[in-house]
Amino acid sequence: MRLSNTITTITGGGSDGWDLFIKARKMISEGHDITELTIGEHDIKTDTRILEAMHTAALGGATGYAMVPGIDDLRNAVATRLAARTGVPTTLDNVLITAGGQAALFAAFRAALDEGDTALYINPYYATYPGTIRSVGGVPKAVTAEADNGFLPTFEALDAAAAGAKALLINSPNNPTGAVYGRDTLEAIAAVAIKHDLIVISDEVYDTQVWEGEHISIRSLEGMNERTFVVGSMSKSHAMTGSRVGWLVGPDEAMSHVLNLLTNTNYGVAGFTQRAALFALGLGEAFEDEIGAPFQRRRALAQKALEGQNAIRLSQPSGAMYLMLDIRATGLSGDDFADKLLMERHIAVMPGESFGDAAAGHVRIAMTIPDAPFEAAIKEIAAFAANLA
Amino acid sequence: MRLSNTITTITGGGSDGWDLFIKARKMISEGHDITELTIGEHDIKTDTRILEAMHTAALGGATGYAMVPGIDDLRNAVATRLAARTGVPTTLDNVLITAGGQAALFAAFRAALDEGDTALYINPYYATYPGTIRSVGGVPKAVTAEADNGFLPTFEALDAAAAGAKALLINSPNNPTGAVYGRDTLEAIAAVAIKHDLIVISDEVYDTQVWEGEHISIRSLEGMNERTFVVGSMSKSHAMTGSRVGWLVGPDEAMSHVLNLLTNTNYGVAGFTQRAALFALGLGEAFEDEIGAPFQRRRALAQKALEGQNAIRLSQPSGAMYLMLDIRATGLSGDDFADKLLMERHIAVMPGESFGDAAAGHVRIAMTIPDAPFEAAIKEIAAFAANLA
Repeated sequence: MRLSNTITTITGGGSDGWDLFIKARKMISEGHDITELTIGEHDIKTDTRILEAMHTAALGGATGYAMVPGIDDLRNAVATRLAARTGVPTTLDNVLITAGGQAALFAAFRAALDEGDTALYINPYYATYPGTIRSVGGVPKAVTAEADNGFLPTFEALDAAAAGAKALLINSPNNPTGAVYGRDTLEAIAAVAIKHDLIVISDEVYDTQVWEGEHISIRSLEGMNERTFVVGSMSKSHAMTGSRVGWLVGPDEAMSHVLNLLTNTNYGVAGFTQRAALFALGLGEAFEDEIGAPFQRRRALAQKALEGQNAIRLSQPSGAMYLMLDIRATGLSGDDFADKLLMERHIAVMPGESFGDAAAGHVRIAMTIPDAPFEAAIKEIAAFAANLA
Repeated sequence: MRLSNTITTITGGGSDGWDLFIKARKMISEGHDITELTIGEHDIKTDTRILEAMHTAALGGATGYAMVPGIDDLRNAVATRLAARTGVPTTLDNVLITAGGQAALFAAFRAALDEGDTALYINPYYATYPGTIRSVGGVPKAVTAEADNGFLPTFEALDAAAAGAKALLINSPNNPTGAVYGRDTLEAIAAVAIKHDLIVISDEVYDTQVWEGEHISIRSLEGMNERTFVVGSMSKSHAMTGSRVGWLVGPDEAMSHVLNLLTNTNYGVAGFTQRAALFALGLGEAFEDEIGAPFQRRRALAQKALEGQNAIRLSQPSGAMYLMLDIRATGLSGDDFADKLLMERHIAVMPGESFGDAAAGHVRIAMTIPDAPFEAAIKEIAAFAANLA
């Protein structure tokens, strides 16, 4: 087959960063007892009440084609939510329901880029970002957020990279670093976006998981609403990763074009999962707090377990379900540290390098196992690092 | 926003062909009693057993991220199905599960086209085809299948259009025409594909609905397996339109690239809907026959109702859930006929022109209402046409 250049180069050639994860999964399948701190998936299942709501909707007849933009009730609920969180008036015309946050990211890049156009993203980064940019023929260009600056991007670094770019992707609260961008950082990003006329794609899927400071959407900053797409999802906030319900929010004229894309690329999202999402949003903030609470609790456990040692520095994990551990004092790379930890202590963590060279010398810990084994694993990692340092 | 040229030109500028449909829906919302023969959606809901299987899977824990390629059991079931239908050895490595047939079509075009590449499609055509080609920056080029040739494409027409093209989309059984491509037609298509080194994207979502002849997949023809993507779906065969479960089947090396695309554009399909699809496939051919039976029955009712009149000629409706009525003897266009029929008799049908100029002077009837009102509507349409002719 004469395949397109676009599809054969989506991965960009190098490792996709999942080698350690695959090695750990292989060891598990061979019978090894491995503690997995690798992936961003809750250790709980989707709440039964949400599943019952889905079933009721399905039995009630929500099994035919749903309207491609999403069902009005859910679009309205998302609009109300975004209006409350950003202070920006939002109606259902600003909201399209997508098959998960990843599909919303794709739609946003398709809206922003033609083939050959450049999109900026922040390094370290979530694994799919450059591939999503390449999936529309775009050219991903990384801007480093230095570990020693708390993994926050700066005006200078962004401005130096932005000439000729069309779009900029940001993610706060951040995966993999746990950084939460404060107002100063967001104002610097906004200044660059306005100066270079960039479309900002703001991935805010962790917006309910902030443990220090507050979540601010860049959409709420002056001059940004008209140039920002916000990506949201039920996955992390409501432990509905497998349901594949997300949304894209943006200016209404832009969304009318995105709707044409959705019609021609996926033709809508299952009505019964949309009804489940609507029910879940209706459970309110108390439920979201309940979903996030284990990560906040485990973050505190880790902070306590790492006190009084010097081999590991815990980067400011202000939000999301991850910790980024600076292990440079051990003299190892993140890749080597993770591999050695897996082989010698049977604990699987993600090398920082999997998320870009800006996270070299770090490992990412997903706080997605129960408290007791989590705490034990952190202590074990600390002891392991101390032996190396 | 500086939106991409790609997204702002997806619709190609003209009407999207749904004006009549929207007008009918508006009249319904205003209280008019309209008989709708417009859209390709069953008049039954998804079978309760399938919904119960989905619920059982969800309660059983299939609520986290499913593997991006699809769950192995479903991929194996689709592979077995395709192997049986095409005679081509097929394994799960040839199968990726997608969020509906539309998403599989998109993935196939992304695999075949870079920006500016040309893809052929057959006119008349299903509404999303040119937009899907444009969604990857491709250039859609229509090849006419003449009404007077039973809406079958010919070697000559395809060959004349194929120079420089990268891909060719076909759809048999066909929406909107109901044509089922026989071996001669498929061999002509294959000859053109091989001569011009085209990737063939074969939309076979109506493969269980054949009322005359048999369904032959072009994938089974000599030299075609290595250049064919087959698009399939649970929507039409199992009345699961709203569940959004489909698949793309192709050569395994190509599929490894398509998997990278899926990872970066939608990150998998809900595990519980995949389990529901697996259960539904397990109901076997008897169930598929049951789902298709109403269309076969209504087709016979229409043939009988149209006997002995001359204003309407029924094109060979060999498969799928549609009839294409040739109303050229009335002297009206399909657009005018449909509009007049809606206003004067309160019956909504799709103008042939909505599916391309090759269907001008025709209207498409979706056989998607119960038998008695369906038969009455056909008789009413015949009387209406006789008055005009």
